[in-house]
Amino acid sequence: MASSNENAGNQSEYEGVPAAVISRLSLYLRELQHLILEGKETVSSKKLGRILGFSDAQVRKDLGYFGQFGYRGIGYRCQELIKEIKRILGTDREWPVALVGCGNMGQALLGYGGFDQQGFRIVAAFDISDEKVGTEIHDLKVRPLDEIGDVVKELGIQLAILAVPATSAQEVAEQLVEVGVKGILNFAPVSLSLKKSVSNVGVDLAIELEQLSFNVVKIEKKK
Amino acid sequence: MASSNENAGNQSEYEGVPAAVISRLSLYLRELQHLILEGKETVSSKKLGRILGFSDAQVRKDLGYFGQFGYRGIGYRCQELIKEIKRILGTDREWPVALVGCGNMGQALLGYGGFDQQGFRIVAAFDISDEKVGTEIHDLKVRPLDEIGDVVKELGIQLAILAVPATSAQEVAEQLVEVGVKGILNFAPVSLSLKKSVSNVGVDLAIELEQLSFNVVKIEKKK
Repeated sequence: MASSNENAGNQSEYEGVPAAVISRLSLYLRELQHLILEGKETVSSKKLGRILGFSDAQVRKDLGYFGQFGYRGIGYRCQELIKEIKRILGTDREWPVALVGCGNMGQALLGYGGFDQQGFRIVAAFDISDEKVGTEIHDLKVRPLDEIGDVVKELGIQLAILAVPATSAQEVAEQLVEVGVKGILNFAPVSLSLKKSVSNVGVDLAIELEQLSFNVVKIEKKK
Repeated sequence: MASSNENAGNQSEYEGVPAAVISRLSLYLRELQHLILEGKETVSSKKLGRILGFSDAQVRKDLGYFGQFGYRGIGYRCQELIKEIKRILGTDREWPVALVGCGNMGQALLGYGGFDQQGFRIVAAFDISDEKVGTEIHDLKVRPLDEIGDVVKELGIQLAILAVPATSAQEVAEQLVEVGVKGILNFAPVSLSLKKSVSNVGVDLAIELEQLSFNVVKIEKKK
């Protein structure tokens, strides 16, 4: 196991951790949450790796960036590792999130149940259209975009979901950064160019379809 | 490099490849597509791994499931590897896709530009609501769900995107399987239980938000 124990609990030491390691933490977290539902209390790095298709060495190396979580002869304790990963990911608290753009995608995301489950709560929705501002979508009143500065301050919002058309994504993202938003999840199929202190992640839904096409071809060939 | 050369081109040999390896193929593909845009012609397993946060051994092991693609002293030829990965993923051809459920999420997905870019074309949209059937969304006429059997046959559809409410997802998915759909991308936040010959992937949008919360916490702590 990598001897990164000295890093445990020291978030500023996470600086050199590759983004892909962080995204694997989410996968480990989901799998651990499933294991708990199945009544499992512990899991080995080998089994955790096998379920997700990583080697046990990769699992140990990934977790080793953050500390020493395994027990000799036992493996990982699921509840404990869930707690640790949530602490590392910052989801041991609830995050208030702003949704910007209440078109089809925005409305769909307002109704999406998967965010709440992991500690993300959409607390404010914004749009520029007079038709939408003032209406209620999933019990949330749509506010005019020019109120976002006040709302972000008032509700302590650091994360925003951007669901505006591709043509206005960059401009609106810059506006979000200006009022203090620190992380943007971008659903527009364009890359944003923002200052380095702001984190932005683009959603690539085609990746999931590629997994399906692979499987369908595989099944076809078997016949 | 793993000596899996004998597997090249023999899709039925992909049986034992872990799902996570396949999802990493998508990541390698996107990165290679970016490298091409930047004018790069070759890339080493070390560099490809570093960009994505994997070890070079992991990259070689992953690709080694499918064949021997690297050149000694050169690395991988980007265009060639893109072509190989697309062949493996089955996206060296265009896939006609059915969209089922034309609510907010469905309408948003009909307007999503990211599918076409990777070879997936939504060619038919279905809903059960009288209000929606017959209307046009992004130039596609919404058809009644009970026509899906005929349309799937006529257009040779094997993949479907399911964007119906969680409460009806399982029932509609079974209907899709019955008419011959082989792969389902499920946007409802529920797990589907389908026969093994049908592949289904659920979309977990909270994973992306976790990446953001991590980064925001990291930046906070640095201050």
